[in-house]
Amino acid sequence: MTPSPVRLEAFSDGVFSIIITLLVLDLHVPRADELAGHSLAHALLQQWPLYLSYTLSFLQVGVVWANHHTMFHYIQRSDHVLLFHNLMLLLCTALLPFTTAIFAEYGLASRSDIQIAAFIYSATLGAAGIFFNLLWQHAVGAGLVNPHADPNRLHALSWHWMFVPVFYGLAFVLTFVSPYLSVATYALLLFYYAFPGPSVIRWMTGRRARRMKVLLRRRDRTSLTGQ
Amino acid sequence: MTPSPVRLEAFSDGVFSIIITLLVLDLHVPRADELAGHSLAHALLQQWPLYLSYTLSFLQVGVVWANHHTMFHYIQRSDHVLLFHNLMLLLCTALLPFTTAIFAEYGLASRSDIQIAAFIYSATLGAAGIFFNLLWQHAVGAGLVNPHADPNRLHALSWHWMFVPVFYGLAFVLTFVSPYLSVATYALLLFYYAFPGPSVIRWMTGRRARRMKVLLRRRDRTSLTGQ
Amino acid sequence: MTPSPVRLEAFSDGVFSIIITLLVLDLHVPRADELAGHSLAHALLQQWPLYLSYTLSFLQVGVVWANHHTMFHYIQRSDHVLLFHNLMLLLCTALLPFTTAIFAEYGLASRSDIQIAAFIYSATLGAAGIFFNLLWQHAVGAGLVNPHADPNRLHALSWHWMFVPVFYGLAFVLTFVSPYLSVATYALLLFYYAFPGPSVIRWMTGRRARRMKVLLRRRDRTSLTGQ
Amino acid sequence: MTPSPVRLEAFSDGVFSIIITLLVLDLHVPRADELAGHSLAHALLQQWPLYLSYTLSFLQVGVVWANHHTMFHYIQRSDHVLLFHNLMLLLCTALLPFTTAIFAEYGLASRSDIQIAAFIYSATLGAAGIFFNLLWQHAVGAGLVNPHADPNRLHALSWHWMFVPVFYGLAFVLTFVSPYLSVATYALLLFYYAFPGPSVIRWMTGRRARRMKVLLRRRDRTSLTGQ
Repeated sequence: MTPSPVRLEAFSDGVFSIIITLLVLDLHVPRADELAGHSLAHALLQQWPLYLSYTLSFLQVGVVWANHHTMFHYIQRSDHVLLFHNLMLLLCTALLPFTTAIFAEYGLASRSDIQIAAFIYSATLGAAGIFFNLLWQHAVGAGLVNPHADPNRLHALSWHWMFVPVFYGLAFVLTFVSPYLSVATYALLLFYYAFPGPSVIRWMTGRRARRMKVLLRRRDRTSLTGQ
Repeated sequence: MTPSPVRLEAFSDGVFSIIITLLVLDLHVPRADELAGHSLAHALLQQWPLYLSYTLSFLQVGVVWANHHTMFHYIQRSDHVLLFHNLMLLLCTALLPFTTAIFAEYGLASRSDIQIAAFIYSATLGAAGIFFNLLWQHAVGAGLVNPHADPNRLHALSWHWMFVPVFYGLAFVLTFVSPYLSVATYALLLFYYAFPGPSVIRWMTGRRARRMKVLLRRRDRTSLTGQ
Repeated sequence: MTPSPVRLEAFSDGVFSIIITLLVLDLHVPRADELAGHSLAHALLQQWPLYLSYTLSFLQVGVVWANHHTMFHYIQRSDHVLLFHNLMLLLCTALLPFTTAIFAEYGLASRSDIQIAAFIYSATLGAAGIFFNLLWQHAVGAGLVNPHADPNRLHALSWHWMFVPVFYGLAFVLTFVSPYLSVATYALLLFYYAFPGPSVIRWMTGRRARRMKVLLRRRDRTSLTGQ
Repeated sequence: MTPSPVRLEAFSDGVFSIIITLLVLDLHVPRADELAGHSLAHALLQQWPLYLSYTLSFLQVGVVWANHHTMFHYIQRSDHVLLFHNLMLLLCTALLPFTTAIFAEYGLASRSDIQIAAFIYSATLGAAGIFFNLLWQHAVGAGLVNPHADPNRLHALSWHWMFVPVFYGLAFVLTFVSPYLSVATYALLLFYYAFPGPSVIRWMTGRRARRMKVLLRRRDRTSLTGQ
């Protein structure tokens, strides 16, 4: 009943690689009889929201995969609850080809429809972010994580990941202000997790290690004084 | 001709991860020119049977995968009949995107059409359940199972899995009473296999182990008296 | 440039598992507004050629996979030509969802259209069979096969596989007599490779081993007499 | 944050095997009610650009996969930039079912539309080629490559791969002369990478090894004279 994380990870990888590849099915070829006198180039350029949402969602799945992989680098054992949270994470992520298609179809529609599209996109990725964190919190709490892992790094990762649902919550709220601000937030998040993210984790890990040393030294001094 | 179970399991995992991801293709984006004056939000909310059937079927494949994995934890060798039963199990499970789509299309239709949808859904999963059991019975009978496995646990698993086709048979019959009762049965089954299931197996394994001890003691006593 | 067969096999397995799962996309759900007064049950029953071709093609891919696996059980090294033949084998097999869809669409059409459908189905699988044999002949000829493998078994497998394109050639010709005979030939081939096939290989392997012994003894006797 | 190349390669393989299999979805079965009095054979033959583009793109993905595999044969470690370049390579390659479908739809259209189709096809594959080279240059530059690998071979591979974006750039320019010339360039490139390519690499590796020997000997002689 409790698959080893190796199998769980392989299954998840399969799902991620299919999700990322299915995104291309949202790119429709304008049919020759639909061009209505326009050139193919014109018809293809008109579809620019499709290309933007394809690129955003592709990178999105790539970032989720990379972080999932980092997480399972530390998880050594598996249990039923872990399995369930992971399945829910996949369920939310697997909706991306659908939510992306909504965005692509309504990216040039009326403002209220773009809001709905941004709302659904943020909600789905926010939910994925919540299950991602539940998965990690459960793994840490239930002792499924490698006991020899650097605790400062685990702590930094917990903070790093806790920001995901917070940011998608923000993107969700920004939808009401302007759906374009919401899309900009996704792009910012992607950029953060792809580029400065790893350096921030290293910095946080180092800072906590130094702090811990200071705390330990202080405790030692106190206990020496106390002696 | 007789692939090792490792390869069989990898192939099955591939199929399961594709099935689970293809389910999203059943979620249609309402086209902008089909809204007929309604808002996108309205059109999306109207599709609620789609979301329910997506969620049910996603969890369904997740549960089948998890149980398949548990089964192959005990199966060490493979033969031609095992291969065939496994292929038939995959054939039935791979129909889920189709049966789910039927449910989604006719979930709000006339009662007799919902009955047909529920009927097909139950029949396909019931057939998958039967092949799942044939696979296991064959593996146990033909000595393909790890000889060092706890026999009490194997016995508990056999009972655990035998309930699947029985319950889908019940869901099938309930279709004639009410298709909604049938859907409720699927949800109940999912819940059982996802949550209390593992504990029930532990309890059954423990109970049989205690019973066997009593039986052995009784036999010993009888043979002592007999002496 | 020459991937190890392990990677080649994993890539092929991925392709096979996707082909087999994509077949379900050929099963169309009749749309509620297309029923034209008929019940859903009626509309679904009308689609029986779809279900037959789904089942045939699913088992077909399963059989190709199983035989591909058997073959790579003996192949230890890989080269550029092997890679090319394997790619061509995958190219032909990956056409199955297309050729199956033709069959499903025209299975109840006029006789000449069914003939075309059967013709294409046979030609594609026949071509797959040819590349399967080229792959094996090259592997044996170029010394890519495990040198410790039983030569009698390798010989039996060569014969076993050489029948595939021959039978599909026959199915191809029978198309002109009757497309139904052609379909019956596919079913027969599937049955042969799924069930008696493995026993036939064992029998051929054994027979050749006995023959070889007789030949060796005869040669020994001749050389003794010659002395 | 930095997955081992093993996982990166497995993920990429999953994506490649899905891309290659999704290509078949571009092959449409002419619907029975669209034949307009023509035979099925006629309708299928009319679709010849579909079959050509399917075959070209299938071999294309096969060649990218084989070269990706060769590259990762030498890459031993992974970092964040490698991950990003690889994701961008997959993003461009995953567009192939889309760009192929454009080609298939407009392969018989007006000349300016074929030009657009060829233009997009060349641009996408050219971009994939650029990321392929960035990946390799980064791996060599950042010391992620196996330090025991033959430097002459690594040098030959760098040259070998640098030609890809150059050739697609050429195909891109040729589009303006004639889209057919462009397609011929793709076919030529495929042929080169599938057949003489490996021999050219061997020859380049050997030539550089000999040259290096000559250089070393000359240096030795100079230093001897210098003494």
